[in-house]
Amino acid sequence: MKDYIEANKERFFEELFSLLRIPSVSSAEKHGPDMERCAARLAVLLKEAGADRAEVCPTKGHPVVFGQKIVDPSLSTVLVYGHYDVQPVDPIELWKSDPFEPEIRDGAIYARGANDDKGQLFMHLKAFEYMLRSGRLRHNVKFIFEGEEEIGSPSLAEWAEEHRELLSADVILVSDTTMISERVPSINCGMRGLSYIEVKVTGPDKDLHSGHYGGAVANPINVLCDIISSLTDGDGRITVPGFYDDVEELSEEDRARLARAPFDLGEYKKFLGIMEVKGEKGYTTIERTGIRPCLDVNGIWGGFTGEGAKTVLPSEAHAKISMRLVPHQDSRKITDLVERHLLSSAPDYVRVEVKKHHGGNGFLIPISSDAYQAASRAMQEVYGTEPVPSRGGGSIPVLADLQKILGIDPLLMGFGLERDTIHSPNESYLLSQLFKGMESIALFYEYFH
Amino acid sequence: MKDYIEANKERFFEELFSLLRIPSVSSAEKHGPDMERCAARLAVLLKEAGADRAEVCPTKGHPVVFGQKIVDPSLSTVLVYGHYDVQPVDPIELWKSDPFEPEIRDGAIYARGANDDKGQLFMHLKAFEYMLRSGRLRHNVKFIFEGEEEIGSPSLAEWAEEHRELLSADVILVSDTTMISERVPSINCGMRGLSYIEVKVTGPDKDLHSGHYGGAVANPINVLCDIISSLTDGDGRITVPGFYDDVEELSEEDRARLARAPFDLGEYKKFLGIMEVKGEKGYTTIERTGIRPCLDVNGIWGGFTGEGAKTVLPSEAHAKISMRLVPHQDSRKITDLVERHLLSSAPDYVRVEVKKHHGGNGFLIPISSDAYQAASRAMQEVYGTEPVPSRGGGSIPVLADLQKILGIDPLLMGFGLERDTIHSPNESYLLSQLFKGMESIALFYEYFH
Repeated sequence: MKDYIEANKERFFEELFSLLRIPSVSSAEKHGPDMERCAARLAVLLKEAGADRAEVCPTKGHPVVFGQKIVDPSLSTVLVYGHYDVQPVDPIELWKSDPFEPEIRDGAIYARGANDDKGQLFMHLKAFEYMLRSGRLRHNVKFIFEGEEEIGSPSLAEWAEEHRELLSADVILVSDTTMISERVPSINCGMRGLSYIEVKVTGPDKDLHSGHYGGAVANPINVLCDIISSLTDGDGRITVPGFYDDVEELSEEDRARLARAPFDLGEYKKFLGIMEVKGEKGYTTIERTGIRPCLDVNGIWGGFTGEGAKTVLPSEAHAKISMRLVPHQDSRKITDLVERHLLSSAPDYVRVEVKKHHGGNGFLIPISSDAYQAASRAMQEVYGTEPVPSRGGGSIPVLADLQKILGIDPLLMGFGLERDTIHSPNESYLLSQLFKGMESIALFYEYFH
Repeated sequence: MKDYIEANKERFFEELFSLLRIPSVSSAEKHGPDMERCAARLAVLLKEAGADRAEVCPTKGHPVVFGQKIVDPSLSTVLVYGHYDVQPVDPIELWKSDPFEPEIRDGAIYARGANDDKGQLFMHLKAFEYMLRSGRLRHNVKFIFEGEEEIGSPSLAEWAEEHRELLSADVILVSDTTMISERVPSINCGMRGLSYIEVKVTGPDKDLHSGHYGGAVANPINVLCDIISSLTDGDGRITVPGFYDDVEELSEEDRARLARAPFDLGEYKKFLGIMEVKGEKGYTTIERTGIRPCLDVNGIWGGFTGEGAKTVLPSEAHAKISMRLVPHQDSRKITDLVERHLLSSAPDYVRVEVKKHHGGNGFLIPISSDAYQAASRAMQEVYGTEPVPSRGGGSIPVLADLQKILGIDPLLMGFGLERDTIHSPNESYLLSQLFKGMESIALFYEYFH
């Protein structure tokens, strides 16, 4: 497919950039019309690539884009999953170029969604187009692109339940993850789940002068800090009773296999600009992000945050807190557990409220499957080395649901790299990975039966 | 002076409102021109009230307004201190009317600065005007109004050093505090000092995906919460080594006298909308705000604070933290102590930076002084009951400096009430207090020799 890429490169950029220019931020209400526009544009691109059916399907939330090409019902079927929504762009001031005006610099595309997931799903459109136009496609291919992955996919599971037949396939093929490095390709064979809550602590019913009341009235920011601090202990373990009950403990053998993945702690720290790593006692960095749960405050706010010094004892303090889960922790159960813990341990001098955001379960994929073997062979051919099976720290909550609803295992062929800084300012995607991804996917079709 | 107020009420409102309409927020750079405008307007009002000298004096920061009326150099001199700067107005959405368009509702003026301190300093202008015009003034009167009280008065002390002679007087008369209630007038005979710092915690040098790195890389928000939580212990005491070294411990007798001030805990909680008070173990609510130091987070921010759920492991987290100090804690010493403590105990997986904002020392005023006795007599006549000597929890850091530089004790005749919610949305000032304040000040001139 190399020649095909070379011959069509400029058109590819135009098509991908037309997606990247649409600010499809699923979490912000004001971007509703952009979600519609982006879904419509994707359906057009599906048609142009050769799908004989491509439609924008309404859901309770943002629409799902469905497309398919049925070559021959007796052939096996690949269901490609991707998402066209993106993360918010703030802090916007740290972007070197407009997040929604893609730019190619130093061999990479810079834009929100360049990798996650518009860039990665685009590889599937073009690999499919190539296979079809070159007369090599011997699969039926279905596409399902959702617009709510970044907000926890609240609508897709229900939509999938209602369209089981339409979505029937032999594998769910997904490119929405990273590989270890360009020299060390890897295939994710497990992802973490997610619980996400928002906590509001209310003290006095109005902002107070901190001189008149400081010392006598509980300050909700101080209390929120106490609560957050108490959620983990000195060993980096989460203190919520029952939190670890269902955590899968890996055998020494499994841990040894994970440890074989090349990992340079010095490079890792240098890339992140940190002096030291920090995590749960008794586990390596790879284990801490792969097989262990964790708790992070994703945002916190309260009181006076402007320039200068204001002596206020604020009425409210807020935090967004998420937990990454591992098999076999159940997202709902954990969210309920944490909510109960927070509410029951709330001191009587403040009011604590918990709002639940969407979460999802983690999952595991057997490396013995035909799909994994085909992906491994394809990537080995493109990268010149056998991909390492790895465990991803991130979450694609809906995949565990789809796996359950459709009875099909997902396969995670991700071509992102750490350097792409997805979810952060200056998200990018290397052209070399974009093209190698297309080649690997095309070869996957050759080897998967 | 009652009749004088009645006859001139509408003009009084016009004059006061002309000050309140100027957004003289000293902490925000963009309001620089408003500070100049407000100072100039005050000088005009001083002239109109009868000062034979009124000028706007430049300082390193916002200007000082000086005015005086020398009746006879052999008479005793009253130096009136006030400030024309105000606190920021956010959260602006909680204001029921424009903070800079004063409105009279339910017998009170609503505006930023209605009480603190434009409303209170205005009483002095009008009491002075009345005494002068009615031919009763038998004092020299000097006025010093600064524009930096809300940001810690960084320039006034130096300006006062350079103008010692000009400022020579027998008492510093100040209305910038509250009294217990309309039925229980009180005179502050001590205030707390202030230390104010801003803490920045930096983890990775960019925002990260919390799935890919969560559990392996320290989250600066979590670390900031740990730091803040560790600054106080379960008994509500501040844990910074050496913090309590210079704290004045009151005798049982002094504590018993303080306890005599009427205080209804039920009313207090009801007014604040809280179920329980919270503070240092072993002290009453009045003691916690009057004679004990405390630590409050005045603002905190970091990560994603928008709508929805973003899974980010942020690069930075920030907090504004202030401590109220008591005699004989030294503000600079305490600020240095806390900075050293934070820097030396910072873990190696983050970078901690401390920025010092301006602070000031607390002070005490002897109730045996002529000035206190005159104020007490004046207020007893207006309110029909003898004022209680109290200890204010707030800080007017510059007063301790002025006391030291000029060798004169301040006297705090404050007419604010808790209900005025200064520093908060919907700041207000009761008309009854505005007018009773004017009457009390006019009588103070009668009784002070």
